[in-house]
Amino acid sequence: MKSNYKHIIKNAYKLTKSQKDNGQLATYIPELANVDPSMLGVHMTKVDGTNFGMGNHLDKFSIQSIAKVLSLTLAYKILGEKIWKRIDVEPSGTKFDSLLLLEINNGIPRNPFVNSGAIVICDILITHLKNASKEFLSFVRDISDLPDLTYSDKIADSEKATGYRNVALCNFIKSFGNIDNEPSEVLDFYFDMCSLEMNCEQVSRTFTFLANGGNKISDNKKIISNAKSKRINALMLTCGFYDESGEFAFKVGLPGKSGVGGGIVALYPNNYAIAVWSPKLNPNGNSYRGMKLLEEVTTHSELSIF
Amino acid sequence: MKSNYKHIIKNAYKLTKSQKDNGQLATYIPELANVDPSMLGVHMTKVDGTNFGMGNHLDKFSIQSIAKVLSLTLAYKILGEKIWKRIDVEPSGTKFDSLLLLEINNGIPRNPFVNSGAIVICDILITHLKNASKEFLSFVRDISDLPDLTYSDKIADSEKATGYRNVALCNFIKSFGNIDNEPSEVLDFYFDMCSLEMNCEQVSRTFTFLANGGNKISDNKKIISNAKSKRINALMLTCGFYDESGEFAFKVGLPGKSGVGGGIVALYPNNYAIAVWSPKLNPNGNSYRGMKLLEEVTTHSELSIF
Amino acid sequence: MKSNYKHIIKNAYKLTKSQKDNGQLATYIPELANVDPSMLGVHMTKVDGTNFGMGNHLDKFSIQSIAKVLSLTLAYKILGEKIWKRIDVEPSGTKFDSLLLLEINNGIPRNPFVNSGAIVICDILITHLKNASKEFLSFVRDISDLPDLTYSDKIADSEKATGYRNVALCNFIKSFGNIDNEPSEVLDFYFDMCSLEMNCEQVSRTFTFLANGGNKISDNKKIISNAKSKRINALMLTCGFYDESGEFAFKVGLPGKSGVGGGIVALYPNNYAIAVWSPKLNPNGNSYRGMKLLEEVTTHSELSIF
Amino acid sequence: MKSNYKHIIKNAYKLTKSQKDNGQLATYIPELANVDPSMLGVHMTKVDGTNFGMGNHLDKFSIQSIAKVLSLTLAYKILGEKIWKRIDVEPSGTKFDSLLLLEINNGIPRNPFVNSGAIVICDILITHLKNASKEFLSFVRDISDLPDLTYSDKIADSEKATGYRNVALCNFIKSFGNIDNEPSEVLDFYFDMCSLEMNCEQVSRTFTFLANGGNKISDNKKIISNAKSKRINALMLTCGFYDESGEFAFKVGLPGKSGVGGGIVALYPNNYAIAVWSPKLNPNGNSYRGMKLLEEVTTHSELSIF
Repeated sequence: MKSNYKHIIKNAYKLTKSQKDNGQLATYIPELANVDPSMLGVHMTKVDGTNFGMGNHLDKFSIQSIAKVLSLTLAYKILGEKIWKRIDVEPSGTKFDSLLLLEINNGIPRNPFVNSGAIVICDILITHLKNASKEFLSFVRDISDLPDLTYSDKIADSEKATGYRNVALCNFIKSFGNIDNEPSEVLDFYFDMCSLEMNCEQVSRTFTFLANGGNKISDNKKIISNAKSKRINALMLTCGFYDESGEFAFKVGLPGKSGVGGGIVALYPNNYAIAVWSPKLNPNGNSYRGMKLLEEVTTHSELSIF
Repeated sequence: MKSNYKHIIKNAYKLTKSQKDNGQLATYIPELANVDPSMLGVHMTKVDGTNFGMGNHLDKFSIQSIAKVLSLTLAYKILGEKIWKRIDVEPSGTKFDSLLLLEINNGIPRNPFVNSGAIVICDILITHLKNASKEFLSFVRDISDLPDLTYSDKIADSEKATGYRNVALCNFIKSFGNIDNEPSEVLDFYFDMCSLEMNCEQVSRTFTFLANGGNKISDNKKIISNAKSKRINALMLTCGFYDESGEFAFKVGLPGKSGVGGGIVALYPNNYAIAVWSPKLNPNGNSYRGMKLLEEVTTHSELSIF
Repeated sequence: MKSNYKHIIKNAYKLTKSQKDNGQLATYIPELANVDPSMLGVHMTKVDGTNFGMGNHLDKFSIQSIAKVLSLTLAYKILGEKIWKRIDVEPSGTKFDSLLLLEINNGIPRNPFVNSGAIVICDILITHLKNASKEFLSFVRDISDLPDLTYSDKIADSEKATGYRNVALCNFIKSFGNIDNEPSEVLDFYFDMCSLEMNCEQVSRTFTFLANGGNKISDNKKIISNAKSKRINALMLTCGFYDESGEFAFKVGLPGKSGVGGGIVALYPNNYAIAVWSPKLNPNGNSYRGMKLLEEVTTHSELSIF
Repeated sequence: MKSNYKHIIKNAYKLTKSQKDNGQLATYIPELANVDPSMLGVHMTKVDGTNFGMGNHLDKFSIQSIAKVLSLTLAYKILGEKIWKRIDVEPSGTKFDSLLLLEINNGIPRNPFVNSGAIVICDILITHLKNASKEFLSFVRDISDLPDLTYSDKIADSEKATGYRNVALCNFIKSFGNIDNEPSEVLDFYFDMCSLEMNCEQVSRTFTFLANGGNKISDNKKIISNAKSKRINALMLTCGFYDESGEFAFKVGLPGKSGVGGGIVALYPNNYAIAVWSPKLNPNGNSYRGMKLLEEVTTHSELSIF
């Protein structure tokens, strides 16, 4: 890694650390409310393997919705363009649209990154795999080079016990015929998937395949085709941040994905993946300081995709 | 231009030309319904000035909403980030959201490329310029190197006589206090702006400044800062194609903007601008064959921004 | 009138007068903001002609949307059930639905009492009458026995100058093809219609025909058939109070119609019409004290239609 | 009963029977799809006990949502006006609003007759009764004078197995905190409640208490106060027929409630209750021939409440 990058990340980290943090911890998953809100970490991994991190970049956090990119990758790899019969590729517009638009669109979620879309992806994987939960974990272990990675039962159980909104979504889609398996089975897998824990270093390394034409950087193994990798990046850019996707594209200018655990991953194709973590969320459900830090990095590196 | 590009464009043109055209002519502006629906043109201009076109690339068409990128550029250049107090930068979600979301958001349009947002941009320019219509024309004449460019009265009058939906939008926003001038004055300018006519060669050349860090390629004059140029590109990627913006990003992978006259412009930063024209529109209001042709070009050139 | 009625009205008036008034003056029509907010009047007219009033029952106020019942009566009388091809008879659900539902229903307003529906009624009258504004005034003069009644230019002009929301609605409906005449002409008539001024005594007398099988009580002249009169009453019950229609039916239990001038008229079929006036409006746009007073009257008279 | 009534009912029955039936059987509850679609029954019971029926008026059918009036009655009787903190009293506007408005209104259903509202009523009863399912059945047995009435396990199980939409609604409301008990327990009771079976004669007799000031006609026992009885009637008028409530008020002019089993009950206060049954539903989910038959009855009897 060029010292230039290190310099930019250091400065962005320091600036963000020195400013007031304005967000709120996610409370709808009780277990997430127990996280230390002062955490701030950042780690960048270049496609040549060089990498650099700051702050709490080696502390694990619940990656939550960031995992949706990985489940999409697995389903897209297995089934190809067929999956788009069951999920659209458009931004969702507003928060409540997730339900309004689901009804208008007869149970076809707007994109694979809103909860409804990720739930349909889980349903697809359950149908096409012998043991979706197990095989998805193997897939993530492989691309992350973390053979000991496991789901967090504590997080998954916490969400299972209180995730009424997701139960509602899954049953609503089922009522339109766009869920093939039993809602409880689909949701068990969905909650498992979202319970994965990694640190910033691991997340940034894991996602380098999307900055590397679909190939793992450690052994150059093809995870997914170059064309599919580009399309996943396009989806992250237009749909990765709920109703703040336009803002992220506008200010940061990179494909990315956030999670309510306060993590964000972003990619600069052919260059690097970067992960940040700060638990307090802005009103749109994205990490308040994570957004700031990434904006600093791309503003000073002048390396957005635009 | 490398012969490689010419080859890709030629093939994409021929393939598109040979296939069935499935769209419909825009009918809500009567004058647009008189266009020859068989027209198909494409022209690419690289930032080094080399360029190449095919088919009806030298026939003029009504650029319509493509002009919204230019009025945004002028307003953004003059007023800077202040304009975002009056317009958001998020995709609009669905067709009817233009009104639903306007109401929910108290008259703040979702982005500068939906009609409501472009109308607010017109209002901003009227307030800050002595003669918005005249000065905007001068601005476009300058960046396009077309000193004789004029508004098409025929098109503007045709839309003025039938543009009830836009009258509705402008008065609706006014009722929320987000239009400062009289709706009739704002709409006169809006309809003028949308009435500009250019051919593919001219459109592709005009838009090269957004692929060139905000600088005109003919004389390297700065039209807008590099940072603002990137942000306009980001907006085109997330919001340039109404409710099909995600699809365009997914399949074509370039910032772009369509118009109901059947034109589309797209950019590959630091490389080129490309304009296509085919009048028949798909159900989302974007050129049916224009979308196809651009998809062919980026698929075979493997040059999306992702 | 039985002394019993007088007693109930007196008590309801006194109780209402003694309590705090919580509403706000309508401000969107500047002229309405100049009204004395302390006004409180009530007047009941029985179908046998006996009548009784209290407070400011002889002070004139702008009847505003109450006039929509009269324009509907005229259009229904002239054209019969045909008018329901252009307007539905369902409650509108929510405030913003007026626009959302207009779009979903392709420009068919939910009912004749939301602004959009009343505008379509105006359009129908313009098409079928030589001079709608003049003939509607004659019609109201006749049923009200007020030969000198005139439109209030001051109110109409005030609304014309600021009624951007109604201009938006009318042009929006026009864009769906459900307005036949020019929006400006339709709106001129609409604003005239809403500018009528009467006092409580006059309003209650005027509306007795709807409590009398469609017949004027002074000379038993048929204004409209009994069947149509019942249907207008049904519409008032389900749609007369915007998004508070259910509440009014629930608490008062009579067909009625409110206006933003603070007036309300209600009917007990075969018995009486009652008008109240108090300018301050609750958040749903209905007279705060008017609703209270009428609730008192029907609670103590035990004479709701249910 | 005056022969006049019999005559009107006979004629309405014959006319309806002779015309083409245009509806569709409800299919979302599999068990309901097994009903003979040619069934047509009608029965009127006057508050003096005289009664008269025609056709399949003695064949049992699944009363479905008609039971929501009875569960509301029980909750209203026990808890009084407090229940309106958790449910509104407004018409719902459109079909999909049930979800859209639930979200906008933070989980407060629009009224007790949309599914979401009836589910909240079930939750209230579970909280305040020892065994809601058993005690509700006792309550209905009492007011219907049908001591052997039982839930239909076949219908309830059929809906439990496929009622994904209701599972979605209940969990969605729970996510807003407006369901106190476990969704599965609430839904079990809800499906039980909707599974009651009666014939037209029994339904019309059962509902006479709402036409009799809240008193049972057989023994004059007070079921609910007169004021509450009137308010339930008002709710039936404004909200009893989903998005066709306005139409029913407009054409029939009586408080009523429909069920997807094809039954409808309607009331003329101080006079009678009438029940009709014909299984095929119109697009709004109300019995196609039931609506027609009732319209005939009130048109010829001229006895709407308006």
